[in-house]
Amino acid sequence: MGRRYDTVTLLSDYGLVDEFVGVCKSVMLRFAPEARIVDVTHDIPPHDVRAGALTLVRAIQYLPPGVVLAVVDPGVGTDRRGVAVAVDTGFLVGPDNGLLAPAVAMLGGATQAVSLTNDEYQLEAPGPTFAGRDIFAPAAAHLVSGGEMAELGEEVDPMSLTPGMIPLSQPDQDGLAGEVLWIDRYGNAQLNIDPSELNALGLQPGSELAVRIGREQRPARWVRAYAEAGPMELAVVVDSYGLVSLAYDRRPVAESLQLRAGSAVTLAPAAG
Amino acid sequence: MGRRYDTVTLLSDYGLVDEFVGVCKSVMLRFAPEARIVDVTHDIPPHDVRAGALTLVRAIQYLPPGVVLAVVDPGVGTDRRGVAVAVDTGFLVGPDNGLLAPAVAMLGGATQAVSLTNDEYQLEAPGPTFAGRDIFAPAAAHLVSGGEMAELGEEVDPMSLTPGMIPLSQPDQDGLAGEVLWIDRYGNAQLNIDPSELNALGLQPGSELAVRIGREQRPARWVRAYAEAGPMELAVVVDSYGLVSLAYDRRPVAESLQLRAGSAVTLAPAAG
Amino acid sequence: MGRRYDTVTLLSDYGLVDEFVGVCKSVMLRFAPEARIVDVTHDIPPHDVRAGALTLVRAIQYLPPGVVLAVVDPGVGTDRRGVAVAVDTGFLVGPDNGLLAPAVAMLGGATQAVSLTNDEYQLEAPGPTFAGRDIFAPAAAHLVSGGEMAELGEEVDPMSLTPGMIPLSQPDQDGLAGEVLWIDRYGNAQLNIDPSELNALGLQPGSELAVRIGREQRPARWVRAYAEAGPMELAVVVDSYGLVSLAYDRRPVAESLQLRAGSAVTLAPAAG
Repeated sequence: MGRRYDTVTLLSDYGLVDEFVGVCKSVMLRFAPEARIVDVTHDIPPHDVRAGALTLVRAIQYLPPGVVLAVVDPGVGTDRRGVAVAVDTGFLVGPDNGLLAPAVAMLGGATQAVSLTNDEYQLEAPGPTFAGRDIFAPAAAHLVSGGEMAELGEEVDPMSLTPGMIPLSQPDQDGLAGEVLWIDRYGNAQLNIDPSELNALGLQPGSELAVRIGREQRPARWVRAYAEAGPMELAVVVDSYGLVSLAYDRRPVAESLQLRAGSAVTLAPAAG
Repeated sequence: MGRRYDTVTLLSDYGLVDEFVGVCKSVMLRFAPEARIVDVTHDIPPHDVRAGALTLVRAIQYLPPGVVLAVVDPGVGTDRRGVAVAVDTGFLVGPDNGLLAPAVAMLGGATQAVSLTNDEYQLEAPGPTFAGRDIFAPAAAHLVSGGEMAELGEEVDPMSLTPGMIPLSQPDQDGLAGEVLWIDRYGNAQLNIDPSELNALGLQPGSELAVRIGREQRPARWVRAYAEAGPMELAVVVDSYGLVSLAYDRRPVAESLQLRAGSAVTLAPAAG
Repeated sequence: MGRRYDTVTLLSDYGLVDEFVGVCKSVMLRFAPEARIVDVTHDIPPHDVRAGALTLVRAIQYLPPGVVLAVVDPGVGTDRRGVAVAVDTGFLVGPDNGLLAPAVAMLGGATQAVSLTNDEYQLEAPGPTFAGRDIFAPAAAHLVSGGEMAELGEEVDPMSLTPGMIPLSQPDQDGLAGEVLWIDRYGNAQLNIDPSELNALGLQPGSELAVRIGREQRPARWVRAYAEAGPMELAVVVDSYGLVSLAYDRRPVAESLQLRAGSAVTLAPAAG
């Protein structure tokens, strides 16, 4: 037996309208009746592997030790692999399509991995389209209960796992060309820009910036908290994950400036 | 005392925006502090008893033994009965309006039933419009803790319970006339057609079909997984519940073909 | 040590799409691994302190003893205080912006309060914009586990807590001028009017009323349950919280009559 854990954390694009999540939880509790299940989110946009990977990597450092079950799986039923990946804090289980990769990297990399090929640890199903229920949930339950990973299928080289894609910012004339990683509930736009990159441009909290979105350029100010921005002022804020974001005070910046995940944004010092 | 169970599973049309679900759970935990509560879904469309019944019957075989509390209850506060129904795996609790019937049948039928008339097991309330909180949650808590069903009210004949309505497919010329049971999160459309009915028409995985929706007829192909369909190809897929569904690869078929629950769909072999 | 509790109940405007709620729960479970967490709702409209306060006060009497963690916090990161408030049934934790006040009052008032200033009980964070994760969740975990409230920061006078604002109805000619407190999932409109106020106007269940919304006046009837209203009849119903509400049978009154939280509604006896 391996080490037993208390918790399975879940992330998926299943939504909460259908019964998918409740069924996956029920299957896990059948095999691991003592497990505690914590939802990260199930409202990743359907099939959006990148959004799922980014959400998981934002959350991962806060999740309890144990098993992370993540499913955003447009290739379900094809020959894409399902995998379990061992990391220092436990295991990640899901499709091998890049969804898990950034979180695995954040946790220091995979120490071992298996392809979930042993159908003794799978539910029989009339169709191959619900791997969360039939393959991933039983695997997660097995691992959280201290079952051996090797029983779930053949070992695979962790280096062979599909990598994640997190875009890097690029220098651009006198500034930085980045993109929107995430529009949050409040309409704030997180960028793939680190505050240290702004510091390297001579910017500090309080500095004035020029924000370019498409052909339009707007003035902005680096503030510490959303509510420090003036009523109509575009704010640059270091968000709770330590990345640079665009925001208005109590209004969704994404809607006003027509930003969405992937939108290009360039930041530079205000022309002085 | 009856047998104690661990789990109450919940299904409702309460949504997650208001406090209804949290209040029902709190009431249950007051009377059954050890219970584990698993949500199936709370986003059944308001008052849609058929959608609730179909969701419950899809999930039921996966749910843990214990008590199922289901509430979609347009007649709340009228003389429609609230019931608890004993089955082999535990109990179902909810309004007697057809919501529970398909799940009860799937579990082999009711062995006993009571009408929830004993107000000693109910919360006093200023108005009769929240039976989930005042009547059903206390009843579910009583049953999961091993309380006697007979204490909840007078016994009723299980044959007197309101039946569910699941429409059957019909032969139609050279094919099968069915209807959409469910549009899932991904826009796939589950039909009330069993793959064995397609086999009886000489169809197999790989076969070409003709799909008629309203006046329009479209070609389709029976594939094993969504991702096996070509970019613009309409796919017939046996879904994870063993029913025939219509799908596109990674696009919502329901939106493109304007399908919704109840839409008529006819399947036939492609004219050859 | 103080008294240990079992349960933390959560209410926020975090939504369920992002990872915010899962991260707050994970942080609590790190410090309070035995805690049970019950969600009231996370779909308070962003920044809507009044809606959060009204939802919490509707739910509060049903919640288990323990800790209530509530976060609707447009001023996060500014000098608005974060507080823990002791009440007879446990503690409430959240921003001091009026969100907690009506619930505290409903529970008989605060016996003690602290400002959450001790950063030994807070997570270090790159930015000050996620107090739920960094300040409130650790505080709630501390209190549910029996930790001393005084360790979390300096004591403050409960009388200094920001009061909540629940609007009162007013006499108006021959009736009562009130407003909509809440549009629920079903489109029913709860008013800030108590049935005893209608009784004082000579009205009883069964009475005919005149409902004025803006310039339009409509006939209505006081019924006991939604389904007692006729197909096109506007109903006045005492809802499950004991307040007067407007409803149609199985249709959203809010949509038809363009009501939303805050809309003015006047009720009077029908001209006879």
